[in-house]
Amino acid sequence: MKKVLALSGGVGGAKLALGLDRVLPGGSLTVVANTADDFEHLGLYIAPDLDTVMYTLAGINDQERGWGLAGESWQCLDALGGLGAEQWFQLGDRDLATHIHRTAMLRAGGSLSGATARLCAALGVSARLLPMSDDPVRTLVTCSEGELPFQQYFVREQCRPEVRGFRFEGQAAASPLPEFMALLEDPALALIVICPSNPFVSVDPILGLPGVRQALQASPAPLYAVSPIVGDRALKGPAAKMMVELGLPVSAVSVVQHYRGLVDTFVLDESDATLAGRIEEPAMRVMTAPTVMKTLADREQLARVLLADAGMPAA
Amino acid sequence: MKKVLALSGGVGGAKLALGLDRVLPGGSLTVVANTADDFEHLGLYIAPDLDTVMYTLAGINDQERGWGLAGESWQCLDALGGLGAEQWFQLGDRDLATHIHRTAMLRAGGSLSGATARLCAALGVSARLLPMSDDPVRTLVTCSEGELPFQQYFVREQCRPEVRGFRFEGQAAASPLPEFMALLEDPALALIVICPSNPFVSVDPILGLPGVRQALQASPAPLYAVSPIVGDRALKGPAAKMMVELGLPVSAVSVVQHYRGLVDTFVLDESDATLAGRIEEPAMRVMTAPTVMKTLADREQLARVLLADAGMPAA
Repeated sequence: MKKVLALSGGVGGAKLALGLDRVLPGGSLTVVANTADDFEHLGLYIAPDLDTVMYTLAGINDQERGWGLAGESWQCLDALGGLGAEQWFQLGDRDLATHIHRTAMLRAGGSLSGATARLCAALGVSARLLPMSDDPVRTLVTCSEGELPFQQYFVREQCRPEVRGFRFEGQAAASPLPEFMALLEDPALALIVICPSNPFVSVDPILGLPGVRQALQASPAPLYAVSPIVGDRALKGPAAKMMVELGLPVSAVSVVQHYRGLVDTFVLDESDATLAGRIEEPAMRVMTAPTVMKTLADREQLARVLLADAGMPAA
Repeated sequence: MKKVLALSGGVGGAKLALGLDRVLPGGSLTVVANTADDFEHLGLYIAPDLDTVMYTLAGINDQERGWGLAGESWQCLDALGGLGAEQWFQLGDRDLATHIHRTAMLRAGGSLSGATARLCAALGVSARLLPMSDDPVRTLVTCSEGELPFQQYFVREQCRPEVRGFRFEGQAAASPLPEFMALLEDPALALIVICPSNPFVSVDPILGLPGVRQALQASPAPLYAVSPIVGDRALKGPAAKMMVELGLPVSAVSVVQHYRGLVDTFVLDESDATLAGRIEEPAMRVMTAPTVMKTLADREQLARVLLADAGMPAA
């Protein structure tokens, strides 16, 4: 059976991962998620991107709010506030179960990948979801306020500080997950997709793990990247704001340049078709597709377009 | 201002502690709670007796169920079950906030007494609530199944195993809380009350801490003990069942013998008045009082009777 690998951050990536999961034969999809957003909060190990992908693949994510679990309640968070504990990170009552159970597994000596596998099995996720590494990598945002841990920048400060750069603490010493690297060498691997996730803080933490970029380049599987920028805005999150602050044009063209030398096929949104002529990357093919995924049908359609383009069958 | 010290386990003790708190001038009551029931569960530090007393003094305990918080919800516990985590210990969503916040304070290097003080301040508890020790003491129940940690015996096994004895791991090496010992030497201390708590697993862990029994005996303050046994049953919990299994008559008389040489005044329930003539303890005075506390008025009344007997003013 041919295999597909998706590299994903949180919400945007999870949408495409779900689309792929729904149209691919069971057992063919592996999703590798960014863990550089992970942090410890109130003693709990929290993995926002892994959880977003896991909840999305399990069909229990909240689609209105865009993160967390559907039908969530907030009693514990409310009580934490009454006790004077930090409340800036939203912890739903049912979401807390994930954090508590995973933290207990980790403290008992389990690995993040092992804990993820058990959580996914309990939630009925059929795709294989892997953390990019079992070793800690932590995104630090260099900004006007100094260097902020990612969740403090992203949630507590709501991306207000002006970004100057990023540092991925622990990345150089981290090992990419062995199952991830093994898949890159698997002859059955027929497609690699960089999901429409933030290139700076969701994808770069994965790409910069020792050996990953080389293994991606060495893999005979075609590597697609779906633009997270459509027109002059990011579909989700602070990618566009970061581009402005980093002095880059807010355009899919900046993403193309970011992935130069790595990606084989860049997927522009069909509304950005006119950009295709402006992209001069001899080693990169550009295609257009409907990348804005509002409905479940949108997610499946984009997955089908990518699979068809890569010559793979889809349901 | 005259001071009062109450030694307490969970539910039964908390009732009298609340009565004392309500009729005493502010700042005069200290409650020392058993911590040998404490345990770590799913990575959270849980202190059942401290919490019961704290919630009761804060007026937020559930009076129907007898433990935990009023108006509690169970979303996290339900989700934990779905994830395959242990569910035998009931964790309410709002109660979880206490465990999470305290565990985080402890992991950050705080003491149990410091964490307790912060939780009590946040919840508006005016009495001073102290853990018996900042050091770990753990009750192990020797029973037909071997040696069980207390919460496994009490909650998971619902007190079904036959008790042969108890061991308080860590007790000999634990220091009683300095504020507790200082109060026992405080000339303002005018009354010490052993609340109607389980003598074996709630009070003995406190009494057996190094130096506590001697300090109680040395204190000029009169030491009262309120019987947790009325007639041939325990007002709450497994005390009566334990007495049967330990070969003791189920009667307040067994409690009298348990506290021989320590207690100055033993408080029988008024329904047990006929027992008074059967108690031959030259060093112990026996009095009767309405000890069955069903209503808030009952709690206050018992507190007033004790304070009046000890010559202390009450509101």
